[in-house]
Amino acid sequence: MSENNNDTSILMHPIGFVDNSIFEPASAREKKNTESLIVLKSEYAEGLDSITDFDKIQVFFYFHLSEGFPMIQKRRYDGKMAGVFASRSPKRPNGIGVTVVELLKVDNNILHVKGLDAINGTPILDIKPYISE
Amino acid sequence: MSENNNDTSILMHPIGFVDNSIFEPASAREKKNTESLIVLKSEYAEGLDSITDFDKIQVFFYFHLSEGFPMIQKRRYDGKMAGVFASRSPKRPNGIGVTVVELLKVDNNILHVKGLDAINGTPILDIKPYISE
Repeated sequence: MSENNNDTSILMHPIGFVDNSIFEPASAREKKNTESLIVLKSEYAEGLDSITDFDKIQVFFYFHLSEGFPMIQKRRYDGKMAGVFASRSPKRPNGIGVTVVELLKVDNNILHVKGLDAINGTPILDIKPYISE
Repeated sequence: MSENNNDTSILMHPIGFVDNSIFEPASAREKKNTESLIVLKSEYAEGLDSITDFDKIQVFFYFHLSEGFPMIQKRRYDGKMAGVFASRSPKRPNGIGVTVVELLKVDNNILHVKGLDAINGTPILDIKPYISE
């Protein structure tokens, strides 16, 4: 049941990078007030059409500095030891991070956002409108 | 500003697969009431420790049937033509999907969830606790 023909590796390519003043991993609280630029590769600029219809967007990024993943980790949420999938730690099998950020402004291929929980140079994988669930 | 040393491809590996009764892409509304199994590879079972601390989890998956991505698409949200990043369409540069689901039960490496917006056989990339933002 757990194995099938889709069990191949998946190749992703950054669509852009984070440009902000955070150069080392820090607490989420500090990052929440930081303004960041998301600089998309110019060929993706058209894909931002109508994004300002939304006040908030989900930014998907890659934890490029993380190496390895303890299956049980101390999680920040409550300080408890817990499985990697019960934690939002950057140390995970596929290093996908996602943050809901406030969209401040868009200039061509550059998004100005507030609250991005990612350091300078972080590769961006995707951007989606945030629709409250 | 847009290019740097992190601009390499990123390799991901499914951590498991969706097992449910949805065999063709359908409307999100239908899927919202469907119960699904998420069958993780057995080596990841330990990573589910303490996940039942949460009623809802974020499931990250790969749109394995999507091919190509129109930069401008008609989006389901309001029927308007919009950029791919202003849409949650499965047709996107890196085919990452994410859904917040209700966690019903966990048996070893198998999660029982409700509301997963993904078809049978979809590769799972990550699972995180959902913490309201």
